[in-house]
Amino acid sequence: MTVLAPNQSAPNQSAPEDVDAAAAPPKVEFDTAPDRYRHWKLDVDGEVATVTLAVDESGGLVPGYELKMNSYDLGVDIELYDAVQRLRFEHPEVKSVVMTGGLEKMFCAGANIRMLAQSSHAWKVNFCKFTNETRNGIEDATDNSGQTWIAALNGTAAGGGYELALACDQIVLIDDGASTVSLPEVPLLGVLPGTGGLTRVVDKRLVRKDRADLFATKAEGYRGATAVDWGLIDGTVPRAKFDDEISRRAGEAASASKRPGGEGVALTPLDRTETDDEITYPHLSAKIDRAARRVDITVHGPDTAPPADAAAVLSQGVNYWPFAVTRELDDLILRLRTNESELGTWVFRTSGDSEQVLAYDAQLTALADDWFVAELVHYYKRTMKRLDVTSRSLIAVIEPGSCFAGLLLEIALASDRQYMLEGVYEDIDPEADPAVIVATKSNDGLFPMGNGLSRLESRFWGHEGDLKSARDRIGEKLDARAADEAGLVTMALDDIDFEDEIRIVLEERASLSPDSLTGMEANHRFVGPETMETKIFGRLTAWQNWIFIRPNASGPEGALRRYGSGQRGNYDVKRV
Amino acid sequence: MTVLAPNQSAPNQSAPEDVDAAAAPPKVEFDTAPDRYRHWKLDVDGEVATVTLAVDESGGLVPGYELKMNSYDLGVDIELYDAVQRLRFEHPEVKSVVMTGGLEKMFCAGANIRMLAQSSHAWKVNFCKFTNETRNGIEDATDNSGQTWIAALNGTAAGGGYELALACDQIVLIDDGASTVSLPEVPLLGVLPGTGGLTRVVDKRLVRKDRADLFATKAEGYRGATAVDWGLIDGTVPRAKFDDEISRRAGEAASASKRPGGEGVALTPLDRTETDDEITYPHLSAKIDRAARRVDITVHGPDTAPPADAAAVLSQGVNYWPFAVTRELDDLILRLRTNESELGTWVFRTSGDSEQVLAYDAQLTALADDWFVAELVHYYKRTMKRLDVTSRSLIAVIEPGSCFAGLLLEIALASDRQYMLEGVYEDIDPEADPAVIVATKSNDGLFPMGNGLSRLESRFWGHEGDLKSARDRIGEKLDARAADEAGLVTMALDDIDFEDEIRIVLEERASLSPDSLTGMEANHRFVGPETMETKIFGRLTAWQNWIFIRPNASGPEGALRRYGSGQRGNYDVKRV
Repeated sequence: MTVLAPNQSAPNQSAPEDVDAAAAPPKVEFDTAPDRYRHWKLDVDGEVATVTLAVDESGGLVPGYELKMNSYDLGVDIELYDAVQRLRFEHPEVKSVVMTGGLEKMFCAGANIRMLAQSSHAWKVNFCKFTNETRNGIEDATDNSGQTWIAALNGTAAGGGYELALACDQIVLIDDGASTVSLPEVPLLGVLPGTGGLTRVVDKRLVRKDRADLFATKAEGYRGATAVDWGLIDGTVPRAKFDDEISRRAGEAASASKRPGGEGVALTPLDRTETDDEITYPHLSAKIDRAARRVDITVHGPDTAPPADAAAVLSQGVNYWPFAVTRELDDLILRLRTNESELGTWVFRTSGDSEQVLAYDAQLTALADDWFVAELVHYYKRTMKRLDVTSRSLIAVIEPGSCFAGLLLEIALASDRQYMLEGVYEDIDPEADPAVIVATKSNDGLFPMGNGLSRLESRFWGHEGDLKSARDRIGEKLDARAADEAGLVTMALDDIDFEDEIRIVLEERASLSPDSLTGMEANHRFVGPETMETKIFGRLTAWQNWIFIRPNASGPEGALRRYGSGQRGNYDVKRV
Repeated sequence: MTVLAPNQSAPNQSAPEDVDAAAAPPKVEFDTAPDRYRHWKLDVDGEVATVTLAVDESGGLVPGYELKMNSYDLGVDIELYDAVQRLRFEHPEVKSVVMTGGLEKMFCAGANIRMLAQSSHAWKVNFCKFTNETRNGIEDATDNSGQTWIAALNGTAAGGGYELALACDQIVLIDDGASTVSLPEVPLLGVLPGTGGLTRVVDKRLVRKDRADLFATKAEGYRGATAVDWGLIDGTVPRAKFDDEISRRAGEAASASKRPGGEGVALTPLDRTETDDEITYPHLSAKIDRAARRVDITVHGPDTAPPADAAAVLSQGVNYWPFAVTRELDDLILRLRTNESELGTWVFRTSGDSEQVLAYDAQLTALADDWFVAELVHYYKRTMKRLDVTSRSLIAVIEPGSCFAGLLLEIALASDRQYMLEGVYEDIDPEADPAVIVATKSNDGLFPMGNGLSRLESRFWGHEGDLKSARDRIGEKLDARAADEAGLVTMALDDIDFEDEIRIVLEERASLSPDSLTGMEANHRFVGPETMETKIFGRLTAWQNWIFIRPNASGPEGALRRYGSGQRGNYDVKRV
């Protein structure tokens, strides 16, 4: 998150009194492409790509603010996410990525304050979640894809601008006697640097606690030797040598990369059909029941056997079934999270042939050394992680005709509950084959959660014997009773009880407080160890959400609402 | 946290519309003793003690609610904390502790809902923090003191009642066909089981995520074989065999304990003098500057050399300097946190002879095998942990005449910043000896933080070289420059700059948003790994605080405010 220089917002505009009652936010689309970017430029020059932030001031996603001084809103971040994805899939030749700014003196002033001030609580929270995920994706590219991101700060990086830099592997600041890195959220806005800032400063940059405290309370920030000594940046270089230093670092990172070069996979537009109560893709459909505040999502298994080898996989590109499913699922998650906040329960089903799913699942492991398959595996991992931090109740329903195997079983394991029909629906299709599920090695390490555990490890946390039993059954087709015995489903019920149970569960869920469900799910889903990533979504985000809703930030006299008015926040001075 | 059975609160009483504007809460005292308890009974029978909850319905700390069905408020928990402390210090013979209830059918219904509904946000948050600390203390007794706590649930344990049981090492539920364990906060109140409940269910009791979800959404809870199978309880026993089973478990735990028996140390009342702007103890003074919203706390070093041996230490008892200081500091922290929410900055100083402090510090290690010294070390550890989760800015000021050595240096290291005067105050006392600090092994493992790290490890997290350098200087007297070089202080300044700097720092701190400071400090103080304990204070508490302030819980139509009125909460159904 955050922050603009004091002079950037228009003091004569006043924020609405009750932002949560403000006009409904627009429907958000996540489709974009470099030739449509308004805020970023993506240049590829051999092994090195450059993404340049040059925000179109009048290009805000929502009316009511101007994106001055390279400040950003969700629309700016959607383009960044697109660029991150394209670099990984379309550019196997790109081995390092330079992130820099297109303005003089200001690299990026962070999230636009006027936007934050006028946004509802839900919008702010969802915006921060998406920006956090994108920054985690940048780190994932550096860590797992041989694409090292380097922040070339050609001017001040303030608040969310510095948090962008923090997501990069290296941070180089121009030494012009003026440009700084800073986290002015606490002193100027009364909120946190909540897009990973506080956590990454101490847990990634390893800045000492007391220095982090000085830094996060000093609005103007630091530069020069202090910034380097403390670990806030990796280097600071005069303008005349800046480009050379960035080139040198980018070249060095590229030469250490194992990315293969060659042809990429073009991310063509998704084939999506949408009506008021249905969103449909070739391999995925979502049916909305607004009265029940629920969406029923069905993932379709593959129609054909997997292609023969890595070359054939690559030539299928976006049509390779696991890739197509992942892209569609990613898009659907983002759309539902952003545009459908009242649909509190997501019910997941699958349909298809488990054998086919398993064939693809095995291929993901067999071709793990292929760059495209590896990228796809990481993408599916990130998509499952989106589910883990999605503030919706996730229920998997496992019925005849389903194909919860391997990578698709991950969806069930990521869910809060798994209901499995024992036998068949006697009234509907007595001749059907009863449902089975199949765990594979994919469920035990190919798609680790943010806490570093596989979903099997997480499920059986502290129960080594049960984990071993589940591992022993990897590859077996488990019917409802066996799945229940193996601890892989919440409940196995025959058809007499099943439909009633599901109906009651969904009705009950819809009757509960959405906030308490969000908090409960966020605690249950992250058993065991925490990592920098889960700390960002747990400790940091939860505190930020609390602060966002406190009058000291978002009340009429709060700092966030008063910012730019010439008046400071009028604080309730009590510590809570 | 939480929960009463539906019929317990008075439906004809309506909660005030604006609870945060309600009458100021009373000043809270933490002094009590078993003969003054209104809600607990403490019985010692040889190696086994029994603490029995029998809440005086009319004994609420604040007017406006009745503590029906063994529900509790802060006053009830203050007595429990006192009992936990006395068992450790006054009863070296007690090797296991049975916690049970004095009512029929209901062990404990959790935190009183009417109390929560009428309390300000700050009161709720502070209440939960204290109850969390007390439950952590129960676990500390089991883990480190050879005092195993056993929950003997003679009736239903609902919400905070079950969370009390979760803090015990073992949970046995009476099998009477009706009594259950439950966490009805989410379904009935729209808040979380936030006093460790969600975290302990999955991270301590190791209940599978989906079962935890079922449990935390099922108001009536579970009993019998299911409760045992899932790990919610350790056993369930018919009434006729209940007492025998509890005795058997208590005896078994006692026989595995290494507690020595013998004479304990009586926890006599603290010698505290209080005026409107000063709280003074024999070894500690706190001067309040209300205009500056600050308190200056000075810890006094020992006047005399430590006693000769363990027997002499024991005979000093409450007068043994480290114990006296710890008790006073603990009391002061609790009083300031609860009664002085506007004092946002705590400035810590010490005065005395470092050599004397070091002599005591060395004795704590030398006599580590003595039960009383060991108890004292754990108590000081817990008191430092209270500082870590205190939502106040903590600033250490190190001047001539101070004695920040060993255990007292922990206070500086727990602080957000450390300012050290280089040289002396030339105008005041040019002949003084410049301040020195001394790190000892106490700073590197005797008092681990909640995250399992020593304060030195935490300070140099990710910097093994710096940690080693600091360790190499253990035992050395470090003047300001040396302390700065060793990374043990934030800033070393000479007297020309020092006073100005401190003044500006404190003024600036007081000008910032209290909420954002709380969130910032809570993130910076817990670098690196998380544990069950830090997850409770981080992930769980932060979410609970968010939920507490949301209209769905605390608004006029929120579930918490409407509870007992016959009306359910009227929820904003949007997910955030």
